[in-house]
Amino acid sequence: MLQDNHDAIAAKAGIPIEVVRIGIKDAGKSRGLKASIFTTDLSSIVNDPQIDVVAEVIGGTDPAGALVEQALNNGKSVVTANKELISKNGSALGHLARSKGLDLHFEAAVGGGIPLIQPLKHQLAGNDVIKVMGILNGTTNYILTKMTNEGADYGEVLAEAQALGYAEADPTADVDGFDASYKISIIASIVFGKQVDPTKVHREGIRAITATDMAYAEMLGYRIKLLGICEAMPGSRVLVRVHPTMLPKTHPISSVNGVYNAVWVHGDFVGDVMFSGRGAGGDATASAVVGDLLDVARNLRIDGPGSAIPWDDGAELAPMDELTASYYVRLRVNDQPNVLGKVASIFGAEEISIASMEMKPLSHGSGEIVFMTHPANEGSMRAALTSLKNEPSVQEISNRIRVEAS
Amino acid sequence: MLQDNHDAIAAKAGIPIEVVRIGIKDAGKSRGLKASIFTTDLSSIVNDPQIDVVAEVIGGTDPAGALVEQALNNGKSVVTANKELISKNGSALGHLARSKGLDLHFEAAVGGGIPLIQPLKHQLAGNDVIKVMGILNGTTNYILTKMTNEGADYGEVLAEAQALGYAEADPTADVDGFDASYKISIIASIVFGKQVDPTKVHREGIRAITATDMAYAEMLGYRIKLLGICEAMPGSRVLVRVHPTMLPKTHPISSVNGVYNAVWVHGDFVGDVMFSGRGAGGDATASAVVGDLLDVARNLRIDGPGSAIPWDDGAELAPMDELTASYYVRLRVNDQPNVLGKVASIFGAEEISIASMEMKPLSHGSGEIVFMTHPANEGSMRAALTSLKNEPSVQEISNRIRVEAS
Repeated sequence: MLQDNHDAIAAKAGIPIEVVRIGIKDAGKSRGLKASIFTTDLSSIVNDPQIDVVAEVIGGTDPAGALVEQALNNGKSVVTANKELISKNGSALGHLARSKGLDLHFEAAVGGGIPLIQPLKHQLAGNDVIKVMGILNGTTNYILTKMTNEGADYGEVLAEAQALGYAEADPTADVDGFDASYKISIIASIVFGKQVDPTKVHREGIRAITATDMAYAEMLGYRIKLLGICEAMPGSRVLVRVHPTMLPKTHPISSVNGVYNAVWVHGDFVGDVMFSGRGAGGDATASAVVGDLLDVARNLRIDGPGSAIPWDDGAELAPMDELTASYYVRLRVNDQPNVLGKVASIFGAEEISIASMEMKPLSHGSGEIVFMTHPANEGSMRAALTSLKNEPSVQEISNRIRVEAS
Repeated sequence: MLQDNHDAIAAKAGIPIEVVRIGIKDAGKSRGLKASIFTTDLSSIVNDPQIDVVAEVIGGTDPAGALVEQALNNGKSVVTANKELISKNGSALGHLARSKGLDLHFEAAVGGGIPLIQPLKHQLAGNDVIKVMGILNGTTNYILTKMTNEGADYGEVLAEAQALGYAEADPTADVDGFDASYKISIIASIVFGKQVDPTKVHREGIRAITATDMAYAEMLGYRIKLLGICEAMPGSRVLVRVHPTMLPKTHPISSVNGVYNAVWVHGDFVGDVMFSGRGAGGDATASAVVGDLLDVARNLRIDGPGSAIPWDDGAELAPMDELTASYYVRLRVNDQPNVLGKVASIFGAEEISIASMEMKPLSHGSGEIVFMTHPANEGSMRAALTSLKNEPSVQEISNRIRVEAS
């Protein structure tokens, strides 16, 4: 991108952006640039006094973390696409950048090419942000979209996605929600001004979603998406979570399909705003990294102070048990006339009220019941599910999916 | 918003933002703030040496233009929501701000609370932007959405919108596309780096859209939206236009309804990105103005140089005749067997090829024909419509709507 759009970028920045060195792991690979630009000695880059800005696109915390820190300590502004590093150590690195009067930008860390980080820090910053919900992982959105459109089961679509290169051989980071948890942590840290520890985010992946759940969602007017969600809770606390979510088909996020990402923000003044686009891939990442580099270059040209906007340490997280949500609960039960009463009583005992119910016979004396509840407390739902597990007429709790209305 | 979120905004800016004076027209109105803060002498604000930043939300070019200029000349950064002023005079004002080392921000001028102006200037700036399409006017989107959903005709829905306060008593600025033309001019000026004169933008409003067109659009798989569109043309020229457009229902803009605005950007690296949200209203405008004020305040606190990013003068506009688009053409014709051949020959003579056709009898010996064309040249289409007008078996060219696939 810096090569293709070199002159236009130089005109916008006021100075050309020249790539001096590229740090790589495997010196043997051919990369279509002159060999002398490459080095496997990464610290030689961050310690080179001729270099003004370092772009870090290694990923992971080691060695990226130490390299970014060293670059900042050496007076170089940093642009990074590293979601894990920023989600785990964004507060310290941001404060280091600010104390040195440097820039630390990471637009590519969340939502690929979608402008999101800087709009949250700047254009939306006057809002008290009440809630953010996002499709933050393209692989899982691709899988869920395929499952929705084709009625296929999870395993089948995953295998196909792996064959096409849309999913990794070990899909854990995507399908178990780790990737999304880093990204929603960064969003929550910006929005609420305090570091959210990604390892403490409630996290559920998509492995348990079946074609049956997809069919019920369709029938009931919903889509199932893997969402990262953060919201303000009483006592200056934040609830941050990643899990499959049923959303009404009419919600703008519901029509964001395939590898596209989308982030929906609800602020007290702006109302609802949504951003969408390609959340991954070399070109989309390049767009965000180069946009950040361009800002650093503009700033270097006028010798301006860095514009890092760090967050502080220690967001206080609310526990999931305080969540209020509606729930979809699918059960396999004995096909007997008295079962519904027993199950309904268990929900009633936990003060969970039912909004709708579907019931159908399965083979071999079993039946399937699907409940949609009114908003209920997560802790009460957990208690109800425990009671249902111990109820002899309930053969299996087939699934439980949270529902978001807005 | 500055009052409600005062402390949070002060914490983010590093200094409090205090409203010193508010310029008004009518001193008699009660506004819920102490009377001493108000003045009808607007120049006393821009000339007050105690004031650091001026927010201009008057609208129109007079007296807003002179006031903004005076404020900048007096060393005050300016935040404005004024689309007409920026679209007509953004280049000169931007260069004035830059020459004085000041900020000139106008996020609220396009898309209300949606972050768009700054993302185009910063996060997306490394892209060669190929095309932008936007729903830029909430009133017309409200009217078109109602017409789609209710099968109602334009006049009926307009009257209802006026009664509800969604449309002005004189709806010209909205329904004839003037408002959208200012906004797409600003977008085009940023994206292509040169001032686009809004009075030279091709502009068609929504008055000619009928319930019949809506019904055909629905049947053919399209939505009709009033779009502002700008795109790069050969020879470093830009084609900028505002007109009703048929979009496939699957296009992300098609599901943006009611008073919501949306802007879809196609860049060479980022691919497709979309932004949506409330495009008007006091709260959404406040969100954008306060976001801009917050950035100015952050910058004042660290005594940084202004970050106005001006565009230059004189974008060269391509004429509409160079447009290539598909077209929907609806005709009322004599209900005779030889009419289709005559009409088809007229299209053929202009090398316009037909993609699909619907034909139905009307009363009194008339018939209706609807054509969807393959991509064709606008000049050729204009020539074909002239020939159709002169063809005796054609009673009326009922409508002609451009179709965008992406």
